[in-house]
Amino acid sequence: MLQVDPLQGLLPGRSERYEKHLADLAGLYRDAGAFEAALAADGGDPVYWVESSTPETGRGALTIGLSVLQPGRIGDEFAMTRGHLHAQSEFAELYYGIAGEGVMLLESVSGESRALPISAGVVVHVPGGWVHRSVNVGDDKLVTLFAYATEAGQDYGIIERAGGMAQLVVTDGNGGWTTRPNPDHGGYRA
Amino acid sequence: MLQVDPLQGLLPGRSERYEKHLADLAGLYRDAGAFEAALAADGGDPVYWVESSTPETGRGALTIGLSVLQPGRIGDEFAMTRGHLHAQSEFAELYYGIAGEGVMLLESVSGESRALPISAGVVVHVPGGWVHRSVNVGDDKLVTLFAYATEAGQDYGIIERAGGMAQLVVTDGNGGWTTRPNPDHGGYRA
Repeated sequence: MLQVDPLQGLLPGRSERYEKHLADLAGLYRDAGAFEAALAADGGDPVYWVESSTPETGRGALTIGLSVLQPGRIGDEFAMTRGHLHAQSEFAELYYGIAGEGVMLLESVSGESRALPISAGVVVHVPGGWVHRSVNVGDDKLVTLFAYATEAGQDYGIIERAGGMAQLVVTDGNGGWTTRPNPDHGGYRA
Repeated sequence: MLQVDPLQGLLPGRSERYEKHLADLAGLYRDAGAFEAALAADGGDPVYWVESSTPETGRGALTIGLSVLQPGRIGDEFAMTRGHLHAQSEFAELYYGIAGEGVMLLESVSGESRALPISAGVVVHVPGGWVHRSVNVGDDKLVTLFAYATEAGQDYGIIERAGGMAQLVVTDGNGGWTTRPNPDHGGYRA
């Protein structure tokens, strides 16, 4: 049994935790100047972390965890995770909104895009074959619960090789968010 | 995207729904007299229901849904679901508490039992190979979110063939709950 701590963004009893710091995310944001400026001002706290529980492995096993993403902007882009496709790409994933205001950006390898709002009480089903990333478009931590088959694994390289995801989640200049095409995106290759 | 309605216990956008009425549950509770009396007084509303979403099938697909169980007692036993083992028993399942006060009763085929409290914010990981059932020990609806591999399927017969689960979740006579062994349980057979 695990008890979610939504305010702290912790999953006491988890077996794994990883953190990403701003310095780990070179190349993630389009505006290199804004990224350098943010890095120069960075206090070194993690910008996102994942706590998860994998009590068993092999066929049928589930990894269950909490993804926590601090709010922020780099240029016109909102704070985001690196994103991934499952290494075994046919595996789906559940995300369930616990706290905060976010967008789940989903892109199929064949070129479709979806930007789905996620907040407390919202279920997002990421189908097999879709690259996905969380984006924090609010002022507080974005906390989501996730579950996926442990054997699915993650392929983080596919987005990097494509020059980023096809869509960027950016400010609309009015306190909200919108998407615009990423000029550097060159298509997904397996 | 699906939006949980925790007060109503609904998952708008779901693709499947099933309901269980008290009349469907003959043999589930140990106290046959109390069951008959409850049935005679029954208004016919469902005692539990499951709304779920299965947008794809096959390897890697996930079924995500909401389980909603009305409160109540039959004899000293609290209201419960039939329970199941996955037809492909090595598949795990996530339950996440949304509302209400419950117990997830877990039993391994080899004879171990766990009774795990579940309420809003609690994750229960049901490992592969464990029979499981939800029990409502509170005064309001018990609402849980679940996710499992669609191909896992359900075996509902295993509990019936065993004479019920090994443990019963019963009133402690003091406003709380406890467990006691089920005298009719004869062990699980695949």
